[in-house]
Amino acid sequence: MGMTAYEIIKKKRDGRRLDAAEIEFLIASFMKGETSDYQIVAFLMAVYFRGLSGRETTLLTENIMNSGELFDLSSVPGIKVDKHSTGGVGDKVSLLVAPLVASCGVPVPMVSGRGLGHTGGTLDKLESIPGFRTRLTPDEFRGQLERIGVAMMGQTDRMAPADGRIYALRDVTATVDSMPLIAASIMSKKLAEGTDALVLDVKTGRGAFMQRRKDAADLARTMVRIGREMGKTMVALITSMEQPLGQAIGNSVEVEESIRALKGEGPPDLLEVTLALGAEMLMAGRKAKGIPQARAMLEGQLRNGQALEKFRQMVSAQGGDGRVTEDPGLLPRAGELVPIQAARSGFVERIDCLEVGLAAVDLGAGRTTAASPIDPAVGIILHHKVGERVKRGEVLATVLAGNQEKGNRAAVRIRNAYTIGPRRRRIQIILDRL
Amino acid sequence: MGMTAYEIIKKKRDGRRLDAAEIEFLIASFMKGETSDYQIVAFLMAVYFRGLSGRETTLLTENIMNSGELFDLSSVPGIKVDKHSTGGVGDKVSLLVAPLVASCGVPVPMVSGRGLGHTGGTLDKLESIPGFRTRLTPDEFRGQLERIGVAMMGQTDRMAPADGRIYALRDVTATVDSMPLIAASIMSKKLAEGTDALVLDVKTGRGAFMQRRKDAADLARTMVRIGREMGKTMVALITSMEQPLGQAIGNSVEVEESIRALKGEGPPDLLEVTLALGAEMLMAGRKAKGIPQARAMLEGQLRNGQALEKFRQMVSAQGGDGRVTEDPGLLPRAGELVPIQAARSGFVERIDCLEVGLAAVDLGAGRTTAASPIDPAVGIILHHKVGERVKRGEVLATVLAGNQEKGNRAAVRIRNAYTIGPRRRRIQIILDRL
Repeated sequence: MGMTAYEIIKKKRDGRRLDAAEIEFLIASFMKGETSDYQIVAFLMAVYFRGLSGRETTLLTENIMNSGELFDLSSVPGIKVDKHSTGGVGDKVSLLVAPLVASCGVPVPMVSGRGLGHTGGTLDKLESIPGFRTRLTPDEFRGQLERIGVAMMGQTDRMAPADGRIYALRDVTATVDSMPLIAASIMSKKLAEGTDALVLDVKTGRGAFMQRRKDAADLARTMVRIGREMGKTMVALITSMEQPLGQAIGNSVEVEESIRALKGEGPPDLLEVTLALGAEMLMAGRKAKGIPQARAMLEGQLRNGQALEKFRQMVSAQGGDGRVTEDPGLLPRAGELVPIQAARSGFVERIDCLEVGLAAVDLGAGRTTAASPIDPAVGIILHHKVGERVKRGEVLATVLAGNQEKGNRAAVRIRNAYTIGPRRRRIQIILDRL
Repeated sequence: MGMTAYEIIKKKRDGRRLDAAEIEFLIASFMKGETSDYQIVAFLMAVYFRGLSGRETTLLTENIMNSGELFDLSSVPGIKVDKHSTGGVGDKVSLLVAPLVASCGVPVPMVSGRGLGHTGGTLDKLESIPGFRTRLTPDEFRGQLERIGVAMMGQTDRMAPADGRIYALRDVTATVDSMPLIAASIMSKKLAEGTDALVLDVKTGRGAFMQRRKDAADLARTMVRIGREMGKTMVALITSMEQPLGQAIGNSVEVEESIRALKGEGPPDLLEVTLALGAEMLMAGRKAKGIPQARAMLEGQLRNGQALEKFRQMVSAQGGDGRVTEDPGLLPRAGELVPIQAARSGFVERIDCLEVGLAAVDLGAGRTTAASPIDPAVGIILHHKVGERVKRGEVLATVLAGNQEKGNRAAVRIRNAYTIGPRRRRIQIILDRL
């Protein structure tokens, strides 16, 4: 009896569960051109309404992953551990945590993405370092992991190509907002890189894709289950994206802040998220007996310069100028600085995270379409964050722009993004672990 | 602000109502190739889950109708009245009612379809008359209506082409079973023919597409509302398709039964449905003051031979051999006759209507795919219907087949389709009117 896409669509439309053979057929026949784009879209819209069970989600992820090249890292000794964030504003944790954890002897194979919407992307940030190459071959990636224990590259066209084709269809058919489809898309790409363990940073709040905490927890649970069913060690932290992480938003400014943080001089919220995720990575890599010990190890590597040294090794290995760790002047930096002053005294009660992210995109730090170029030199520095006391006239933030007009426009948005009032609020950053 | 298919899909996905401009944009941009097949499918699947309001359904119908050529029948005097059936087994009412009503002075412009699944099609039946042409130009159609008051033709490619394209997509994406989409599809084609009034025969029961009475009533209500909102006089009868209508199932055998019925010698159930629909058509055409008067007029036209004469005029006008009304031997007739005997005595309690329809398709009377040829000469004659007393060994039915093997296979199916038992059941045929 021949299986047909029609029967599979109808089954899902009617709320019935699909088995392994049906999901395999659907993705394989799609990649062979036997199942059409419109049939896949019918399936995706049916999934939007009917959902997928945990098992179905895992099967979908596996089949999307298997549509392309899988990295074989078995030649790299040790338990390979990666971290993935669902995306935020000022989220430069990958730049810190990858070399930091690698410096403790845990190999970190990291395949990252570019900025999307109001959020920044790790690849864009790394590429603001002169010479840095994010396009590596699988052999280069593996070789670098063997030599220095850390490598960061962009996804290739040959990894999970079904995801790219499905995502392009979801993007124009209003089928993006489906938890199992989001989870399958992230995990299929991430697990193709060959890691043994994955620590997830699922962001929630105003600047995150999952603004509601419940949605973030659902997504985290779904991804953790997928990874575990595929034999991976999985941990997820739910972290706050109510205000930007750290002080810098942009590309070269975030690299600069990361380097300072690797020297132990980073803003407290950035350090907190980095240590929390890093400790989970050390535990997953079996390098520590408990979270307190793991954190102590990480803090030691920041103090003794080993984390920074690992970062420098990685930059050099990937063609970048390693001297950037000592001379931030090597990074591009926009010439037009626009300071933003506090209109009144009080506490910073809120910084609209989404608005800051959009202002950064408008400056040129992010993309409006997948093809648009970015300007690595522009950005925003937040001198004061939520909970801090400010005086009228004090500089709250500085915009680094390519020209005065863009700088002034961003400055207005940033000023309006700040709420100053009488209450001293505190934002809890690490919200949950699963 | 540019409208986008994406926003329209998302709005419907979220259960919100679309306005006239949005529905117009969607269909127009689809026909221009600016909205892709997969976006239309995303919309259709969203409609499957969210439904359409009455207003949205009418707007969709109107826009699909307006995607092609509209017949202008304003030169034909009088109120033009058509009838449409949702399809059944042995349903040859169109062949009877069109000339019958036309013979009373009501112009009947009828654009019909072909057999689909287990149901027969009016065009296939007409084409079993030697020479009969169902492909007419709009001018021929209008000219014939002006001259003799009745014309029956097939849909052209230029009528509601959006419906054909949408239906082809629905057919392979499990989006056929949606009440508003079914109603819009039927009505967009039907109203392109330029009729002023439409009497619907919505079938329900084992042999109908809407097996459940509630679904048939929903479809009838939806179609009546669409027609009325588009300014047409609309009536719908819900009629039973629990057993085949009349005694003959096939093409030439149904034409032969229709001719007998036009002479007043038809089976009672066929006559009942014909008179009920015909009376509604006369009322819609303002030729009678009430249903009893209308029925009396129709019965008179059957008795005095005027209905049969109008049928003969139509057959001749469309290239067919008009002598067929007097000499059924001119019709093709399969040579292999297989009688089916009653296995025991009792009352016919049930005749599985779907099974009879499928057996007829298997004989060659209908289509398995849109492209498959049909055999006009084959068919099934049911000598006994539900409620009739039969004796063991008596002939229940006769199969007319192209060869013995096919005849025997159909005979087994027909025998099994009959249930003979102790109870005298009666099937009510006209179930509701709206």
